[in-house]
Amino acid sequence: MPAADETRLDLDGDVVALLRQLIDIESVSGDEGPIADAVEGALRALPGLEVIRDGDCVVAVSPGPTDRRVIIAGHLDTVPVAGNLPSRSVGTGAEEQIFGRGSADMKGGVAVQLSVAAALAHAGRQARPVTWIFYDNEEVEAARNGLGRLARNRPDLLAGEFAVLCEPSNARVEGGCQGTLRVDIRLAGRAAHSARPWVGSNAIHAAAPVLDRLARYRAREPEVDGLTYREGLSAVGIRGGIAGNVIPDECVVTVNYRFAPDRDLAAAEAHVREVFDGFDVTRTDGSPGARPGLDRPVAAEFLAAVGGEPGPKFGWTDVSRFSALGVPAVNYGPGDPLLAHTDDEHTPAAQVRACREALLRWLAG
Amino acid sequence: MPAADETRLDLDGDVVALLRQLIDIESVSGDEGPIADAVEGALRALPGLEVIRDGDCVVAVSPGPTDRRVIIAGHLDTVPVAGNLPSRSVGTGAEEQIFGRGSADMKGGVAVQLSVAAALAHAGRQARPVTWIFYDNEEVEAARNGLGRLARNRPDLLAGEFAVLCEPSNARVEGGCQGTLRVDIRLAGRAAHSARPWVGSNAIHAAAPVLDRLARYRAREPEVDGLTYREGLSAVGIRGGIAGNVIPDECVVTVNYRFAPDRDLAAAEAHVREVFDGFDVTRTDGSPGARPGLDRPVAAEFLAAVGGEPGPKFGWTDVSRFSALGVPAVNYGPGDPLLAHTDDEHTPAAQVRACREALLRWLAG
Repeated sequence: MPAADETRLDLDGDVVALLRQLIDIESVSGDEGPIADAVEGALRALPGLEVIRDGDCVVAVSPGPTDRRVIIAGHLDTVPVAGNLPSRSVGTGAEEQIFGRGSADMKGGVAVQLSVAAALAHAGRQARPVTWIFYDNEEVEAARNGLGRLARNRPDLLAGEFAVLCEPSNARVEGGCQGTLRVDIRLAGRAAHSARPWVGSNAIHAAAPVLDRLARYRAREPEVDGLTYREGLSAVGIRGGIAGNVIPDECVVTVNYRFAPDRDLAAAEAHVREVFDGFDVTRTDGSPGARPGLDRPVAAEFLAAVGGEPGPKFGWTDVSRFSALGVPAVNYGPGDPLLAHTDDEHTPAAQVRACREALLRWLAG
Repeated sequence: MPAADETRLDLDGDVVALLRQLIDIESVSGDEGPIADAVEGALRALPGLEVIRDGDCVVAVSPGPTDRRVIIAGHLDTVPVAGNLPSRSVGTGAEEQIFGRGSADMKGGVAVQLSVAAALAHAGRQARPVTWIFYDNEEVEAARNGLGRLARNRPDLLAGEFAVLCEPSNARVEGGCQGTLRVDIRLAGRAAHSARPWVGSNAIHAAAPVLDRLARYRAREPEVDGLTYREGLSAVGIRGGIAGNVIPDECVVTVNYRFAPDRDLAAAEAHVREVFDGFDVTRTDGSPGARPGLDRPVAAEFLAAVGGEPGPKFGWTDVSRFSALGVPAVNYGPGDPLLAHTDDEHTPAAQVRACREALLRWLAG
């Protein structure tokens, strides 16, 4: 196969070939310029779309009112390449798998977006106005997130009745997302030589009840808008001790709470403080979840078009940014989220085609 | 005060002035050459002593049979200097304190050794034959220890009826020493994304019962040869977790057991394995303790000469090297062991003089 042409994406051909073109444009977070240029150029060539560029974020808007508008979004960046470029196709027909960095997370979804945008533009008619968003820096710290920047700079571009984020979900609708909160639990002691431990106070020993509460914790499995979520309260780090002969005067346990979207960030923090009542708890990080919003008519219409049984999204995703703006949002895209970031990341060609057909069925009207 | 003359130590003058000369010869572990040269030169100038040099270890032997011989040992090295050189004298008379790196650990003891060796040599008679040992690399890893090297190369030089190590003990006899054993307790888990903790198994949570056993542990306080020791079982380190969104697949707790000298290393390890029965325990480090041996007639004679009530030594010291060779040994020297390695390390001049008088009283006969 010839090297991908980085400046001319073919939106009108096979969506799987388009996926391979996208994979072959390396786009690790912070270096999305070339892929954003290619996406912008391809969208500007389509009729009937207003194209806006904001940094390495590209937005294409089809005309129509906000109250029936849907937003379909995906990120252009990937985690660092690990010897997994260029793309490879393995197997044929229904078994074909596309390998390469970004294949699952989430250039499969981006290929579906671009292919559907082109098909609708050429058709010259569509059931709903669509805002297509392609953004940068999803795989790095939240402060750099391109969708977050757009929400601050141009909230009008995120306005609509419903949003779909094309993150990998095995081509199944996953509603909303769980929130995430991180806290540090700090145990204090008094340093001493370990030959005379009674002179000091051992901060690691003081962590025993903290670990005990974690080990005994029973996570909630609440139903929210018809989907059953599953929470988790986990130690993700523990650190204590400075030398093999010193009683440690500090031990820090880092805990991550993943919470269902019936709790907001404040309620999540209150819960964690209640679990660790009596201990020194400091919140270090937090992002709210998003309700699935599947009770809305627009969601029912979407579900009917794409088919299948919706499930909950356990991991945090950018759908919560739409939720924060009052727009219900779901995750729907090709690829297995469990393969995201792995070196042998890959996505079934059939899922890419199925997602394209489903979105087109819904939006062609 | 003029700069110390690094080549001519005055063994015949005031023992406190000698201490200051010794402090002012910087001798961080690995750089004991100049101080060993100075000690060797001063000892060779004394009558009636055979002087042996082994690396930066200096040994001076007075003639006499092994069965009545006493070994009096001290190390020449210090931990790194921390702006605490040259030496300073603060206060006067009974209140005088000598400050500077090595003042407490343990050039006070070395000054006492040299001063007493000189006084006995000039007197031309002594109650017992003495082997004086001045050695290198006590403050670093055991493999470099000069006394250990001597025990391997020239065990005959460590033979005798009784040994005194002039480590700081507040001029009080401290019998034997406790042993030390370190183990790693390794908890295994299964990594997973923290949004789906039920897919994995949390190794930090698995450490809860380990910390619980440590927190509930009641240390023994056994009486050995008339002295009451006090053990300790302490976590000195804990490590687990690789990222804020990953269920950790490993957590390691490092535990230090300080044990009384009625247990040998094997019994100590068996005890720790019993406490942590059911867990993956790996021994990483261990040194046996030393029985005080205060029940021997030679010890009674020594105690009578130096006076005071003997106590147990909690920290591990090189007395265990003598114990391993079958020579009972005690710690006895000026300075507070709790000040060892501190930046404002210091030792009372009165203790230095008292130790000199006591050793001389015992050995002059």
